[in-house]
Amino acid sequence: MTKISFTSDYLEGAHPLIINRLVETNLCQTPGYGADEICDSARKKIRTACHAPEAAVHFLTGGTQTNATVIDALLHGYEGVLAADTGHISGHEAGAIEFGGHKVLMIPHKNGKLVASDIKSYLQTFYDDGNCDHMVQPGMVYLSQPSEYGTLYKKQELIEIHEICQTYHIPLYVDGARLAYALACPENDVQLSDLAKLTDAFYIGGTKCGALLGEAVVIPDAKRLPHFFTTVKQHGALLAKGRLLGIQFDVLFTDNLYGNIGKTAIFAADKIRKELKEKGYRLFFEAPTNQIFVILENEQMKQLATQVEFSFWEKFDEQHTVVRLATSWVTGEEAVNQLIKLL
Amino acid sequence: MTKISFTSDYLEGAHPLIINRLVETNLCQTPGYGADEICDSARKKIRTACHAPEAAVHFLTGGTQTNATVIDALLHGYEGVLAADTGHISGHEAGAIEFGGHKVLMIPHKNGKLVASDIKSYLQTFYDDGNCDHMVQPGMVYLSQPSEYGTLYKKQELIEIHEICQTYHIPLYVDGARLAYALACPENDVQLSDLAKLTDAFYIGGTKCGALLGEAVVIPDAKRLPHFFTTVKQHGALLAKGRLLGIQFDVLFTDNLYGNIGKTAIFAADKIRKELKEKGYRLFFEAPTNQIFVILENEQMKQLATQVEFSFWEKFDEQHTVVRLATSWVTGEEAVNQLIKLL
Amino acid sequence: MTKISFTSDYLEGAHPLIINRLVETNLCQTPGYGADEICDSARKKIRTACHAPEAAVHFLTGGTQTNATVIDALLHGYEGVLAADTGHISGHEAGAIEFGGHKVLMIPHKNGKLVASDIKSYLQTFYDDGNCDHMVQPGMVYLSQPSEYGTLYKKQELIEIHEICQTYHIPLYVDGARLAYALACPENDVQLSDLAKLTDAFYIGGTKCGALLGEAVVIPDAKRLPHFFTTVKQHGALLAKGRLLGIQFDVLFTDNLYGNIGKTAIFAADKIRKELKEKGYRLFFEAPTNQIFVILENEQMKQLATQVEFSFWEKFDEQHTVVRLATSWVTGEEAVNQLIKLL
Amino acid sequence: MTKISFTSDYLEGAHPLIINRLVETNLCQTPGYGADEICDSARKKIRTACHAPEAAVHFLTGGTQTNATVIDALLHGYEGVLAADTGHISGHEAGAIEFGGHKVLMIPHKNGKLVASDIKSYLQTFYDDGNCDHMVQPGMVYLSQPSEYGTLYKKQELIEIHEICQTYHIPLYVDGARLAYALACPENDVQLSDLAKLTDAFYIGGTKCGALLGEAVVIPDAKRLPHFFTTVKQHGALLAKGRLLGIQFDVLFTDNLYGNIGKTAIFAADKIRKELKEKGYRLFFEAPTNQIFVILENEQMKQLATQVEFSFWEKFDEQHTVVRLATSWVTGEEAVNQLIKLL
Repeated sequence: MTKISFTSDYLEGAHPLIINRLVETNLCQTPGYGADEICDSARKKIRTACHAPEAAVHFLTGGTQTNATVIDALLHGYEGVLAADTGHISGHEAGAIEFGGHKVLMIPHKNGKLVASDIKSYLQTFYDDGNCDHMVQPGMVYLSQPSEYGTLYKKQELIEIHEICQTYHIPLYVDGARLAYALACPENDVQLSDLAKLTDAFYIGGTKCGALLGEAVVIPDAKRLPHFFTTVKQHGALLAKGRLLGIQFDVLFTDNLYGNIGKTAIFAADKIRKELKEKGYRLFFEAPTNQIFVILENEQMKQLATQVEFSFWEKFDEQHTVVRLATSWVTGEEAVNQLIKLL
Repeated sequence: MTKISFTSDYLEGAHPLIINRLVETNLCQTPGYGADEICDSARKKIRTACHAPEAAVHFLTGGTQTNATVIDALLHGYEGVLAADTGHISGHEAGAIEFGGHKVLMIPHKNGKLVASDIKSYLQTFYDDGNCDHMVQPGMVYLSQPSEYGTLYKKQELIEIHEICQTYHIPLYVDGARLAYALACPENDVQLSDLAKLTDAFYIGGTKCGALLGEAVVIPDAKRLPHFFTTVKQHGALLAKGRLLGIQFDVLFTDNLYGNIGKTAIFAADKIRKELKEKGYRLFFEAPTNQIFVILENEQMKQLATQVEFSFWEKFDEQHTVVRLATSWVTGEEAVNQLIKLL
Repeated sequence: MTKISFTSDYLEGAHPLIINRLVETNLCQTPGYGADEICDSARKKIRTACHAPEAAVHFLTGGTQTNATVIDALLHGYEGVLAADTGHISGHEAGAIEFGGHKVLMIPHKNGKLVASDIKSYLQTFYDDGNCDHMVQPGMVYLSQPSEYGTLYKKQELIEIHEICQTYHIPLYVDGARLAYALACPENDVQLSDLAKLTDAFYIGGTKCGALLGEAVVIPDAKRLPHFFTTVKQHGALLAKGRLLGIQFDVLFTDNLYGNIGKTAIFAADKIRKELKEKGYRLFFEAPTNQIFVILENEQMKQLATQVEFSFWEKFDEQHTVVRLATSWVTGEEAVNQLIKLL
Repeated sequence: MTKISFTSDYLEGAHPLIINRLVETNLCQTPGYGADEICDSARKKIRTACHAPEAAVHFLTGGTQTNATVIDALLHGYEGVLAADTGHISGHEAGAIEFGGHKVLMIPHKNGKLVASDIKSYLQTFYDDGNCDHMVQPGMVYLSQPSEYGTLYKKQELIEIHEICQTYHIPLYVDGARLAYALACPENDVQLSDLAKLTDAFYIGGTKCGALLGEAVVIPDAKRLPHFFTTVKQHGALLAKGRLLGIQFDVLFTDNLYGNIGKTAIFAADKIRKELKEKGYRLFFEAPTNQIFVILENEQMKQLATQVEFSFWEKFDEQHTVVRLATSWVTGEEAVNQLIKLL
């Protein structure tokens, strides 16, 4: 018997509508590198969904790649990127940001998130230091929505961070690897159009949100990053058969599939969270999206692991461990019920 | 009426068997990053096909990315890569090699290829120069099979280049973006097992040879590049749903599909070449694979362009232009006949 | 009236013996790039002083440059460097390490120093993590003797760190920007020959220890870093008139000048420290070398600043600030007495 | 008996006035990193000499370092630098430009120089290519005055290159490693003020023109390169005791020493050239500055080498070799006469 798996949200292939479209279009001939009509159609739909008619939209293949490419494009050579110490770029991307020559300047997180006042205080302290010319210049702010711990930025929080960025003339970039799961949360008040208004660039995650692969970078003001296409190619991030990405985002942005695709995951996660709380489990973070970080006794963890797959996250203390359960757009009721039975 | 297109070999999706397999496996759950069983199966089949039981096999998403990643992994920081001036890395990869800090050291091509004696003479002259410590050290040889102009290296030519590399203690790397079209040529005498014997690394091209995307890097002696997985991630080249690549290569290496998939293209290209010669057209290079470089009078070119799509390659002289016609694994007889009629 | 200055140890030119030698040799003709006889002589003397007859010795111009060059040479592309969070490379080198593509992996300091057990625990935790392939590989250890806070590693501490490095097969590199001030301390038990035995590379600081400029990199086993000369040139760190550096180190390593040049500084610093303690000042760190970190009330600091120049280091709390007083090889008794009077 | 040496223009120390000033100022206390009064004075004098009151002036230590730093600062990440194939950055800087991530885009030289129409034609061809987004964007023009072969750009030639740069919105940067030797030539019509008018940045060479080390970067419009100080530090090019460079340039720009220091070299070179021509030697290039490239029969070369030191430059043909004789600010009449006797 195979175990039920809650290890991540990229266990399966793609949403059936995407697969259908791949089958249908398979033998059509299209030009390469995203210059085809399907990519154009997807770009148009994304611009519409973001209320950003002037936006440039580029399709890349993965999250680490997208972060490295956009961050390198947004920064000057002498600048680094401000991020939460729990940010994906801080520790989990094998040095892809540094490979581009940039330092990640870490700020302690609060619930997995950056707080506007912490960014402000970092910048103030930095510029107050008479030796700041000898240090990496803070050149942009990076954050993830939802955060790496599944928490959500409220619109007001993003507005505050945006304002600090404006004051210090540095861009704001949002990593939306799991953006669909934010959009599917009832408590979420940040829409695509808000991101388009408040950021200099953000990406709409495909890989973890129902696509085979692919992330759509949105640059609300296309003129902000001239020659971004060449930067993408230089980073090895340009797909020859660009339509493979265009097709997927075209489907995801038809009939608001992207806005709805995360709902199954949230429904499942909420059910699991409710159950965990009722049974007295401690959650590491209160978070409303598809990732659940729960603190287990080590023995308990070992036993659960015999029947469920999940991710080991970090040691909590000698007796306890934080583990992650992730639901996805395809998590079935049966699996959830099985898990609940085992808790 | 749409024009018939001979612009490239990545106009369509994937071989139907690949699409079928994607459909079948779509809802299976597998771990990410290439740690799944399908990737394992594909790796095994590739090792077998290459007679290289100790080989490491890694799946990346595109050619420029693969070249940049492998070359960066093979070189020390102070080294550059020797390549033909017509090599793909020399001018067509947006500086991806330089982005990794390495210079491309160009050697004039002969029929699109490097010649062993030219490499030797480059290296001799380099080390004879008393100031060679002030220059980029030649750290490896890069070549493409087939070359960027569709020509093929004979096994004996590769052996000679391999020997020079051995003498100078530098690795040899082969870019096989269009390798299937070499394997499908009757005059080809270089098998996968030869590449495994003669190179330190090579890649088996998927994108241009019937896959949606994907290139399989083969490192015949896995210990040659420790931590290559981390290098791949650092370069933004690691796919989360690695199985998307595993599935395709598993199909391509089942029942020798990869060995046969290029035959249609070669058949079509041979027919076109024969016709061109009979009608007195001049070929820019005599080449046996799926790319045909033909010299057209500018007027002739313009007229042909009204009914056929092809690639402008380079100016030949004031009155003539070199254009490229590419056939592929899916080029139909009808399209070939139409083209022939128009010539 | 000019203020007395304790801002740093690079306020003056060079030791008079160095200046004399520059004057004497000024019109001699020598080959460039360190290939001259004076550089050879300096290298020989350094090898002798280090009991390292097989060592390669290279002269570079400054500390940040030397760190960036040596670290880049010691690391593979996928590796980062372990350093104390207070290490010079962590925050004060404008991202020079990241410019070379490498991440600085920070470990919390103890008295400005790395502790062997912390390094071990970092490495154990790293390799225990099933996802360690997705992260920057820890590729070497960097530390400064004396540390950035003026504290000293005992020989036993270095032996322990060396052993961990051996266990994990990673090199150890020591930044000796202020090494002369360590060598001049009575409590110091780490000699040049110990550094040559325990490290893969270290540098003997000139700029802060009596030279106009210059740092001497010692690679105890020359074969450890082949083509280091080319790496130096690639980093823009190769001086055309290399003899300018050779002359200075030749003088510094004649009659043990380097071993003695820091004594004046230590004498002065000890006197100031004694006085500070007697007057009830709190030292931020107990440190025996030429840097004194003292915690001042903000008012007190402002008043002192009207007559003495020193470095603002960091905020201690709302009412207090840490300031640095640095003595040097040329600090006179008069200045020390003046300072003491003002305390 | 030591041979007379014409190998280069950096065989000796510094102009005696510089040495005197170093001796005089040796024990003065000054702040570090170029923030001292002497550097300020030197910067002012250079601004005046360049008729560029708004210029930023930065002192770096060597030519390769300066080129790498300025070029990296002027280029966007996706851009490369246009240079003559004989340009110093093209082959003689150990890949320092590529280390910063940028490609050197080579244009064939004419007499060691770039020609405006060749640059224009490169740019036109580049932008006419429908695939130019897939290639490194040409982001600036680099040239040396005098060129690497000792030839001089006329003012009109620089104006034409400047105009093309303006048309294509790319900066122009001039490497003045040997600028003093241009300024000392009677046929030179390019003054410092012309460089300040026509370039976005240039550097005034010290190392080869009478200083111990040092190059002064002039950025005529200081706002053109914000945070250049941090870029300099990031490149390891910031000298702690910045005054060492300030002192030298302050002397060089007092009483027009820099304008005159090359005259001895030109006088000597002219005399040697005249003699060579009279004796029927063939010059590789007609050039008026301090470098003489002469074609010698191999036998002749070997014999001359027994009594004179010079630089082997390149093979001319099987029987002949190009060698370089370089004079300098300190070349004596006696050495010239000795050489002439031996020719």
